[in-house]
This record gives sequence, structure tokens and C-alpha cells, in this order.
Amino acid sequence: MAGEAARGATAYVTLEPCSHTGQTPPCTQALISAGIARVVAPINDNDDRVSGRGFDQLRAAGIEVSTGLMAQEALLDHAGFFLRNSQERPWVTLKLAMTLDGRIATATGESKWITGAPSRKKVHALRATHDAVMVGAGTARADDPALTVRGFGAHRQPVRVIASRLLDVPLMSQLAQTARDVPVWLCHGPDARPELRTAWDGLGATLLPCQINAGRLDPSSVLQALGAKGITRVFCEGGGQLAASLLSQDLVDELHVFTAGVGLGAEGHPGIGALGVDHLVEAPRFQLKSVSSCGEDIHHVWRRSDQG
Amino acid sequence: MAGEAARGATAYVTLEPCSHTGQTPPCTQALISAGIARVVAPINDNDDRVSGRGFDQLRAAGIEVSTGLMAQEALLDHAGFFLRNSQERPWVTLKLAMTLDGRIATATGESKWITGAPSRKKVHALRATHDAVMVGAGTARADDPALTVRGFGAHRQPVRVIASRLLDVPLMSQLAQTARDVPVWLCHGPDARPELRTAWDGLGATLLPCQINAGRLDPSSVLQALGAKGITRVFCEGGGQLAASLLSQDLVDELHVFTAGVGLGAEGHPGIGALGVDHLVEAPRFQLKSVSSCGEDIHHVWRRSDQG
Ligand SMILES: NC(=O)c1ccc[n+]([C@@H]2O[C@H](COP(=O)([O-])OP(=O)(O)OC[C@H]3O[C@@H](n4cnc5c(N)ncnc54)[C@H](OP(=O)(O)O)[C@@H]3O)[C@@H](O)[C@H]2O)c1
Ligand SMILES: NC(=O)c1ccc[n+]([C@@H]2O[C@H](COP(=O)([O-])OP(=O)(O)OC[C@H]3O[C@@H](n4cnc5c(N)ncnc54)[C@H](OP(=O)(O)O)[C@@H]3O)[C@@H](O)[C@H]2O)c1
Repeated sequence: MAGEAARGATAYVTLEPCSHTGQTPPCTQALISAGIARVVAPINDNDDRVSGRGFDQLRAAGIEVSTGLMAQEALLDHAGFFLRNSQERPWVTLKLAMTLDGRIATATGESKWITGAPSRKKVHALRATHDAVMVGAGTARADDPALTVRGFGAHRQPVRVIASRLLDVPLMSQLAQTARDVPVWLCHGPDARPELRTAWDGLGATLLPCQINAGRLDPSSVLQALGAKGITRVFCEGGGQLAASLLSQDLVDELHVFTAGVGLGAEGHPGIGALGVDHLVEAPRFQLKSVSSCGEDIHHVWRRSDQG
Repeated sequence: MAGEAARGATAYVTLEPCSHTGQTPPCTQALISAGIARVVAPINDNDDRVSGRGFDQLRAAGIEVSTGLMAQEALLDHAGFFLRNSQERPWVTLKLAMTLDGRIATATGESKWITGAPSRKKVHALRATHDAVMVGAGTARADDPALTVRGFGAHRQPVRVIASRLLDVPLMSQLAQTARDVPVWLCHGPDARPELRTAWDGLGATLLPCQINAGRLDPSSVLQALGAKGITRVFCEGGGQLAASLLSQDLVDELHVFTAGVGLGAEGHPGIGALGVDHLVEAPRFQLKSVSSCGEDIHHVWRRSDQG
């Protein structure tokens, strides 16, 4: 796009330029043809088809290559991409919008609204930074959510994913009825009824068959199916059971918790379902990344200990 | 203490000087005799024996009196004193040291340690700013806590209070065995066994008979008993049942929540017990006062909406 201005210039990129033809032609060729003199790129691509070859091609064409600058930040920025390449699963951000005592709804299922408008706005902004927004079937049934990004003039909506073994989500729900406007993907088990598959297919939804483990959709299998479809970052918005299932298999990379100044007590719906943890040492632990007030709530971000 | 230096000087105080002889002679007389020229005091005392009379006496003695400066801050500083005068109960600060999902112990009762050393240190500092530290009998039984202020060279230890209807707390517990070193007060019901009363009395504890309501020690009655004994600020450290009982009767003025980056899931012991809340509008609400990181945890402070 820079045309003649690119000749002799320095290009700053956050990842090694690719050397192969994927959905687009190799980036290395584009840089070489444009007459770029120097490329600053913090980190190597870990895709087997690239990893080092991109830098080699640039150097062979006489381009100066500088690496390592802000490598930590770049690794985090591309964490989903790397995870998908190395572990065949996308990055998972779990959102929990809870009361002071970790509840996401009253016993009777009331959840609108625990947190305030500024928190909800931030949730929309977070959706926009992910490829997919995912909920469990319980949330789809109870809340009939739209799961779209609203209020940011977003051009691209994340894919909306429902984890539902038996496809037991109302066909008149918002998600079902708008599946042609914004993609809806259903991760389901092998035992979902064929009529329901046909019905969802007819509504324009995409069906992703996944494996079952201990009577539940296997969360690894769900993430693998999403990764295989090109998803690198998933924003999971609960509910408690799906959150617990992901946490207990150590599949949550980052937690965004919004806490409101309200208590619901022990009857309230738990933000994290049963984990089967008897001792504190077994419990999933996260490192604090940031905490701030958000309207009348607080917003705290935690990350897996092994993710920078 | 200032001697001659006080003559013609201005005295800054946070409350109207008292005009009556309580545990000490009237403060107004001390100020007048010292030759103070001006008194700056933000607020009137609401004690019936004072309320305006202190200022009147000073003015009558030719002292200039300025009021209103930082009245909001002074009111908060004396909130416990005012509450005790107006509602016959002390200020209640509730501490909750919880997991991300609002749990204070594993299902098996393990609670050491959910939060880190810096949070626990801050809890000791908070204890030191209260007249009394209170726990429910469940916590006294499960954790065998000492409830003293440690590590701050504190000269005065807060009174240690246990709410236990039937005095069912081990006589070999730390609290029981150290009752002669640091006061232990037991708020109990009329149905506590006489032998147990005698035993606790023999250990040096103070027995405070309270009323029963719906099979439980009535939390209002407990607070009233503490207020009558001169306590103006109580620091309640749980557990979940006592916290719920105070919250459901709207008796919590401030909440100090320490949240650790760990999840325990739905089996974990709830930080706030059953509240009997069906709808969000009925749930106790608090206003955010501050939030910050505290070691690897976060520390958030919430206050009743009607307390500044
Ligand atoms: N405050 C908030 O931010 C918030 C957010 C979300 C939800 N909520 C509230 O939470 C409640 C719903 O939460 P929930 O815990 O009952 O439901 P959930 O986690 O949303 O859904 C649980 C259901 O998801 C399906 N599922 C598929 N794969 C799963 C897996 N690996 N692990 C667990 N479940 C899996 C199962 O249904 P199938 O048998 O159909 O597969 C399961 O019954 C509602 O009251 C909602 O209002 C609040
Ligand atoms: N993480 C933390 O900071 C923290 C703090 C405290 C406790 N904990 C954990 O919490 C657990 C104990 O909590 P808990 O909820 O079981 O017990 P709790 O609230 O400490 O005590 C409940 C008991 O207190 C007595 N009580 C007296 N007046 C009461 C009232 N008005 N309302 C309710 N109870 C009253 C009752 O026993 P009587 O029949 O004897 O009257 C009741 O069974 C333990 O596992 C402990 O480790 C953790």
C-alpha cells in the first residue's frame, strides 16, 4: 500500500513474515518486491512451514533483519496463534461477571444485571478482541443471549459458539434466529438427534461434532474443533459448568473477572461449578495482571502462571 | 501536655469536646484552663449529654469556635461512636478472604492459606483499628484461631469475640487457653449449658447473654451487647454463616475483601452463607471505596450506600 515510499524503508512487524503460500501469498516476497531495506520482527513463527525460513529468505534478498525487540509482548500478542500451532487449541479467555461472593445468578436464574453498564461495555470490547465468543448450553437456555459486539462500530463480529452435547437449545432463541447474520457454531456430541442437526443446519448454523468424556462434551475436543476451523482466541462467557470444565482441565489462559458490590449468598448460582478439588494445592491458580475499578464494579485480570 | 505553649493557641479536634464528666473530666474545662484561644472541630457530638453544650461552654469562655471543616471525614472517623449513640450498636467491618469464586475453605475445611502473607498482614493491621475481633463458632472450631494483632508492636489488643449460642467451642482451643492474656468474650444464648458457662468463666472469659431469633443468636442482640460494653468498632472475620446473618439484617457497614487468584469451585465453603435472596433487588449492595493489589491478591473495600 505504501508504494514507492516503501523502497529503502524499515518494516516493523510483530512476527516473522511467512515464507509459504497459505490463504495469501508469502509475506517475504511482498516485502522483497516492495524494496524494504530492513525488517524488525521480535519473534520466529512456530509454524513448521515457516520457523526461520521467513527470516532466511529476507536475509538472502539482502534485507537487514533485527529480531528480539519486545519479544515478550509479541509472544503474548500472538499467544493464540502459537497455542494453536503447538497445542492445537486456541487461547481461552474466561469472563466471570460475579457478585462479591462469586455468584453469577440468583437461585431462580436472575442474572440481569449483576454488574453495571461500564462493565458490560468492557465485555463487548473484549468480545471484539477474540475470534469467537462461547457459552455453555445452560447459559444459552437461561439468558437467550445475542453474544454480538455492540456499540463499537465493529466491522467483524466474532463467531458465536454454543457447547451443547445434545443440541438442546431453543430453535426460537436469538442465537438460532440470527445464525445467518452472524455465524453460530454448535459444538455437539455424537448422540445429538439427527432432526436437531438438520434443524440447526437449516437455520444456517455450523455443526462441529466433538467427543464425549465422562458424560460431558470434552472441552479439549471442543477447543480442538475450534482451532481446526482457524479460531485462535476464544472468549468464554460461562456459565458456571462450562467454566469449571475448562478450568479443571487447565484450559483457561486468562480470566477477566468483573465483581459487583452485591452479595447473593450460598443459594446463588456458582460462577465456577464443581471442580472436584479437595485440597488448596490442587486448585487452579492464576497470577494477577491488573485490577481497576470499572464504574461501580471492579475488573481484575488473572493469567495462567506459565503465560508471561 | 503542651503547658504554657497552649496559651493563645488553636486546638484542632475531630469532634465536639465533651461537656460532661464521663470516664474523664469534661474536655471543655481542660481547653478553657489551658488558655486555648480557638477550637476547630468539624462536628457536634450526638451524645445527649453533649450535643452543642460543649461548643456553648467554649464560646461562653470567650474561645472562638469554628465548625464544619472536613465534617465528612470526621463523621466517618467517628462512625462507630455515632452508631453506638444512635443505634446502640458498633460499626461492623466484615472481612472476607476468598478465592476468585467466593470460597473461604475447601469442602474438607482447608483454609490455610487462600490469600498470601501481605493480605494476612493487612488483616492484622485492620484488627488493630477495631475494638473487637469477632468470629462465629464454626470458625473457632474449624480454625482454632488466635485473633490477636501480631507484628505491629500493638500495645492494645482488640477484644476477641465468639458468637456461639451453645458455647460449643473447645475448652482447649487457643482462644480459651489465652483468655487471661487477651480478653475473650462469648456471646451465647439462654440455652447454653451452665457447666460450660462455669468452665469459660473459670478460664477468664467474659460471658455475654444474647437473644435467640429463628434458632440462631440474634446478630442485633450480639452487637447490642458489645455496644453496651463500650465497643464502637467490630471486625468480623466470618465465617460464612455469621457473615450471612449480619448481612441479611443489614448490619455490615464496611466490607474488606481479599481475593486470591485461585478457584475452588462449587464444592468450596461459601464466603457468605444462605441469605434467602430470590431477586437481585433484594440483595445487599455496597459501594466501592477502593481497590488495589496486595501481594498476589487484590484488596477491595466496599461500604454501605448510606455511609459516606
Ligand atoms: N453473570 C454472568 O456473567 C453469567 C454468565 C453466564 C451465565 N450466567 C448464568 O449462569 C446460569 C447458567 O450457568 P450453568 O452453569 O447452569 O450453565 P452453562 O455452563 O452455561 O451450561 C452448562 C451446560 O452446557 C453444556 N455443556 C457442554 N459442554 C460442557 C462441558 N464441557 N462442561 C459443562 N457443560 C457443558 C451442558 O448442557 P448439554 O447437556 O446441553 O450439553 C451443560 O448442562 C444461568 O442462570 C445464567 O444466567 C451468568
Ligand atoms: N478464609 C477465611 O478468611 C475464613 C474466615 C473464617 C472462616 N473460614 C472458614 O469457614 C469455615 C467456617 O465457617 P462457617 O460458615 O461454617 O461458620 P461460622 O459462620 O464461623 O460459624 C457458624 C456458627 O456460628 C454460630 N453462630 C452464632 N451466632 C450466629 C448467627 N447469628 N448466625 C450464624 N451463626 C451463628 C453457630 O454455632 P453455634 O450453634 O455454636 O452457635 C453457627 O453454627 C471454616 O472452614 C473456616 O476455615 C475462612
